Amino acid sequence: MTTQPALAVVGATGLVGEAFIELLADRELPIGELFVLASENSQGKTVFRGKSGLKVRNAADFDFSQVRIAVFAAGAAVAQQLAPKAAEAGALVLDLSPAFRYEPDVPLLVANVNDEQLGAAFERNLAAAADAATVQLLWALKPLADLGELVRVSVSQMQAASSSGRAGVERLARQSARLLNGLDADEGEGKQYAFNLLPVAGRLQDNGYSSEELKLMLESRRVLGQPQLAVDATCVQVPVFHGLAQSVSVQGLLPITLAQAEACWEAAPGLRMDEGGGTDSASPARHIHGEPHVRIARVREDLDGLGMLHFWTVADNIKVGAALNAVLLVEKLLKDHL
Amino acid sequence: MTTQPALAVVGATGLVGEAFIELLADRELPIGELFVLASENSQGKTVFRGKSGLKVRNAADFDFSQVRIAVFAAGAAVAQQLAPKAAEAGALVLDLSPAFRYEPDVPLLVANVNDEQLGAAFERNLAAAADAATVQLLWALKPLADLGELVRVSVSQMQAASSSGRAGVERLARQSARLLNGLDADEGEGKQYAFNLLPVAGRLQDNGYSSEELKLMLESRRVLGQPQLAVDATCVQVPVFHGLAQSVSVQGLLPITLAQAEACWEAAPGLRMDEGGGTDSASPARHIHGEPHVRIARVREDLDGLGMLHFWTVADNIKVGAALNAVLLVEKLLKDHL
Repeated sequence: MTTQPALAVVGATGLVGEAFIELLADRELPIGELFVLASENSQGKTVFRGKSGLKVRNAADFDFSQVRIAVFAAGAAVAQQLAPKAAEAGALVLDLSPAFRYEPDVPLLVANVNDEQLGAAFERNLAAAADAATVQLLWALKPLADLGELVRVSVSQMQAASSSGRAGVERLARQSARLLNGLDADEGEGKQYAFNLLPVAGRLQDNGYSSEELKLMLESRRVLGQPQLAVDATCVQVPVFHGLAQSVSVQGLLPITLAQAEACWEAAPGLRMDEGGGTDSASPARHIHGEPHVRIARVREDLDGLGMLHFWTVADNIKVGAALNAVLLVEKLLKDHL
Repeated sequence: MTTQPALAVVGATGLVGEAFIELLADRELPIGELFVLASENSQGKTVFRGKSGLKVRNAADFDFSQVRIAVFAAGAAVAQQLAPKAAEAGALVLDLSPAFRYEPDVPLLVANVNDEQLGAAFERNLAAAADAATVQLLWALKPLADLGELVRVSVSQMQAASSSGRAGVERLARQSARLLNGLDADEGEGKQYAFNLLPVAGRLQDNGYSSEELKLMLESRRVLGQPQLAVDATCVQVPVFHGLAQSVSVQGLLPITLAQAEACWEAAPGLRMDEGGGTDSASPARHIHGEPHVRIARVREDLDGLGMLHFWTVADNIKVGAALNAVLLVEKLLKDHL
């Protein structure tokens, strides 16, 4: 009997870390000991893996030679600091932050899309998971790209408060309650998030695009292996607690019909076609409860006969685009590489 | 001294009617007596035109031969019933509802875009103002169309509660308060509007498009006089009280540069370019206070060298797309036709 590989989760008390650990338990991955790590502030707290409570340890002091896999669900700063140390100690690091996404010798991965590149992670003991938004977009696009070459993808993305983590969720609740009580929304925070749309998500760059938009555009090209694909994105912050919605238009070299799209999406992993077109089942608030997957709705052909296809997707950015993608990558790693 | 033409407003106690009357006073239009009309329920209420209070009368009983112009700011049902009667009595009817927008002998109008067609209104004494969303879109697009032929326009539209009138605004407030107090949002109303995105605005049609999307697509083509223009739209209901936001991508026969667009928008009526790219000044909650105009922000060229231009607009759907357009059309009517 072989020993099952041990795994560490850095950022175990954050939204993504918690969701990852929950999914690990749900999917019964064959891993050995699980170490839950966070910053010094969270040391001693308890995190649950199914029914068993795990004590949170300080990530900065942890000896990563004890684990075979280290999943970093903390921010880029923590990853920059600790991931190389963990990789050096012999753990295969899967980083969910943007810290290493653009390094040419670190594979940028989306499960079921380009996870055949997982082997390249062993070069530096380092793999980067794509951003949650990229995962959501590519789970819908990959089956279409397999049908025939894509030439343009346009995305209008509406992102919830949880895209800024727990602090974003709390800010939306606080500002909403203040406004409904007749007080100023922002308490000097500068921006009104509640009952408002903010047309810049992330930092605005000199070329007029925001960091969130460029991330989605660059990652999509890289993961699909199509550096010339025309992708444009508009990312808007919306007053919703959880969930990420994308209004997508896609143009293939050949027209993509509704029937083709529906047929390939029905067989695709991580996706679920919406049945009740007129209901609110493809809305973030309704969708995020229950089983994690990307829901596709509002699929329709262009009325102008130019062969474009339009659709809408919604998913829980935390549970699906971040945590589920990471769990599926770990699953693949365990199955094919360890 | 000539007598100034008298004007009646039907639906004077609704959101659009109130905003129209306020703008009439602000812009000091040379009109004579103003009659404010509504349903029997509102009879006897008072509506203010500047500082003078006006008694609301029952529209169903009103003798429209007393006025030269009748602006209908009520729904399609009221317009269907009373507008032909008003037109018959000799009033020039400007209807803001969808009731007559698709009749070939009724001009469909957007001020400063195709108001040279106002003369055609005298055929049936009936003109239709385009929907607020169409007005917002075309105030931005017309200057670009004047530069050179447009071939494709894509719009992702985020519409506020006020697009469903006063009832929509009250529903959002009520549902938000319930959710923040730990209660179910919808009180059996079926749909959750608060803290949620609804990917169907209006009724879903057999071709997969919603009535709101088709309205925007069909009206844009008709008002621009470009029946072949490829237009696609996605309309999403967002949890914001007031304001309409559009994320727009436009492709010309020739590439449209950022510099060209900015130059023609600076001189265009009804528009204001946003200066603070990184601020929230182009967000609905910040923008809707103050002077009515469409704010354009996030203007950027495509990074793929295909000559597309992307931008974001925000405006108060009630005050700008509905009321300001109507006031400008009445102004034009008074100046050139009466």
